[in-house]
Amino acid sequence: MRVITLLTDFGLEDGYVAAMKGVVATLAPEARLVDVTHLVPPQDVASGRFRLLTIAPYFPPGTIHLAVVDPGVGTARRAVAVRSASGSYFVGPDNGLLLGALEADPPVMAVELSDPRFWRTGTPSATFHGRDVFAPVAAHLARGVELEELGARVAPETLVRLELARWGMLPDGAAGAVQAVDRFGNLISSVPGTVLAGRGTWSASIGARTLRGHRTYSEVPPGAALALVGSHGFVEIAVHRGDARSALGAGVGEPVQVRWE
Amino acid sequence: MRVITLLTDFGLEDGYVAAMKGVVATLAPEARLVDVTHLVPPQDVASGRFRLLTIAPYFPPGTIHLAVVDPGVGTARRAVAVRSASGSYFVGPDNGLLLGALEADPPVMAVELSDPRFWRTGTPSATFHGRDVFAPVAAHLARGVELEELGARVAPETLVRLELARWGMLPDGAAGAVQAVDRFGNLISSVPGTVLAGRGTWSASIGARTLRGHRTYSEVPPGAALALVGSHGFVEIAVHRGDARSALGAGVGEPVQVRWE
Amino acid sequence: MRVITLLTDFGLEDGYVAAMKGVVATLAPEARLVDVTHLVPPQDVASGRFRLLTIAPYFPPGTIHLAVVDPGVGTARRAVAVRSASGSYFVGPDNGLLLGALEADPPVMAVELSDPRFWRTGTPSATFHGRDVFAPVAAHLARGVELEELGARVAPETLVRLELARWGMLPDGAAGAVQAVDRFGNLISSVPGTVLAGRGTWSASIGARTLRGHRTYSEVPPGAALALVGSHGFVEIAVHRGDARSALGAGVGEPVQVRWE
Repeated sequence: MRVITLLTDFGLEDGYVAAMKGVVATLAPEARLVDVTHLVPPQDVASGRFRLLTIAPYFPPGTIHLAVVDPGVGTARRAVAVRSASGSYFVGPDNGLLLGALEADPPVMAVELSDPRFWRTGTPSATFHGRDVFAPVAAHLARGVELEELGARVAPETLVRLELARWGMLPDGAAGAVQAVDRFGNLISSVPGTVLAGRGTWSASIGARTLRGHRTYSEVPPGAALALVGSHGFVEIAVHRGDARSALGAGVGEPVQVRWE
Repeated sequence: MRVITLLTDFGLEDGYVAAMKGVVATLAPEARLVDVTHLVPPQDVASGRFRLLTIAPYFPPGTIHLAVVDPGVGTARRAVAVRSASGSYFVGPDNGLLLGALEADPPVMAVELSDPRFWRTGTPSATFHGRDVFAPVAAHLARGVELEELGARVAPETLVRLELARWGMLPDGAAGAVQAVDRFGNLISSVPGTVLAGRGTWSASIGARTLRGHRTYSEVPPGAALALVGSHGFVEIAVHRGDARSALGAGVGEPVQVRWE
Repeated sequence: MRVITLLTDFGLEDGYVAAMKGVVATLAPEARLVDVTHLVPPQDVASGRFRLLTIAPYFPPGTIHLAVVDPGVGTARRAVAVRSASGSYFVGPDNGLLLGALEADPPVMAVELSDPRFWRTGTPSATFHGRDVFAPVAAHLARGVELEELGARVAPETLVRLELARWGMLPDGAAGAVQAVDRFGNLISSVPGTVLAGRGTWSASIGARTLRGHRTYSEVPPGAALALVGSHGFVEIAVHRGDARSALGAGVGEPVQVRWE
């Protein structure tokens, strides 16, 4: 009983996601479906990439991650499926969406979805490969079809990678940028929390503000801003019981510098 | 292990949908629940009807579609369950919500939900038949109860039909109207794409604009408007990587004319 | 095959809920997951409490309700699991979120989640106990772990209770306040409908308006306001096919008086 996760920018008011689930339920009735999110901003591949990389590590080996944020549907962009070192699968367009999750859990085999036997019957719609190509392929993987049957092998190093969320070490710290903002307004930087291992006190600067590093929100009074290593494993800027995005007027792309003593 | 789909206008912030799922989980623990959408605009039967008709063809035979957009709850409107030619079931109020999906897959038997043995125990709430009548009936169908046990037979031709999404042939084309707008702002007309089979070049007019027919978004530059046969099978007006609703200032009901050479 | 319900304020655009589901799918692959809502306003424990109490009665005995609205995460607030008289389980922070549902179905045993063997491996994040403590505990309960194994016993009467939704009897009626507003704008008071049993005609007052009590919306014309006993079992103020919140300019906390003849 395989788990198939679904991540799209299809929203929740239309029937697009349900059509994909119907296709899966027809081909792989035993598969368990788990929604990641369908509220990726329309065609925002970078945002979808971040959501996928934050959840993949928590699913069991063998999980099939079906992700469709696909502004290039109908063009020559490749449709791919990838197996990772941990034995998970990633199915979606080859536009960088899948590769964030595959940084921590590298691809070991990739194929282009070139064999129409594993698509939905008939000619696929030119605009909805989620339903007509990606969902049936995910269902076939859940039923035990081998990755290599789905199409021609692709060298994993040729998969499209987004050059996002860059960060680097400084003499006494690290520099990156806000790579995502969550529902609570927490500003999630690209600087991994692991750079702080073994350091003493530290701080993070964003705009004109420098904020002391803490372990948890409650170490500052409600309404105060702070820096901490958030649950995704990155340095975050937050406001205790508040919204850092609006309090600091910052968003995705805003530079963040981490410094330690 | 039957699939039960759920489509409502109950929204996602309250517990209404979960109460229905709890009722199903109690009566039919093996049934698989798939949400279609719960964001149908409140009491907008026509909008719910369109979402249901776009997803039903993708589910396996035997699926039970539980749909509740029910402005007439507590009045004399009938509560019904219908079996279609393909062997699917539709459960909900008899107000036109179900009949769109049943145009392509006609009803073969219908009953009024008149037998309280298949409702939730006790007097049903006057305002929430979703929980107290429709969900238990769907669960009983999933458990194998026969349709004819649920209540008195109803002639399928007496089921309420919404006279929506009219369209008709013209000497050199077809005329209809926008019947739905999706999350991306695509304007989905009532003209079926099948009228274009075997035609050459074609165009669609909406307001003062006439747009060339294409196969996929990417045949025009980003930001340009186009016409195409969308994934629901209807002629759509779209903007490549944009939002046709706002770009063209059009919405549901706007006339659309399709012409070919 | 146990049901685990999920109720949070994590929203639908991030991966927080999916991370919790991944943890459950890893530990208890057979458990069935049902979302209650993830749109509780951020950190609004009272709102989450109301949603949970309205759905718990509809789930089968043995259901595990996993609820996380947790503004005190990282502080000394207790993390608890509770078994109710009906045999259901409630897992979450001890901040009053769980106790509304436990008024109708009283707690019979409670434990503090003090044994890290039942948490996610490694040190829990200081900010996301939903993923690292509550979800694994719910999964272990679904697998059959006994409540008393999860940590030290806690006297149920010491669990935190919110003093909300007060109401009381008057000589010829009852007085309470609006405790929640739903998607349709219905104003749900704290006065239970049971106080009306055996009474004749009744009315409810809110602000300067006094509204006649009815059985269902359709007993008044579209656009008219009315009072009725809603599907949650409380006296509600509604507008037939309209939105009482905007029509009456009222919200949570607004006093409501019920009077009978």
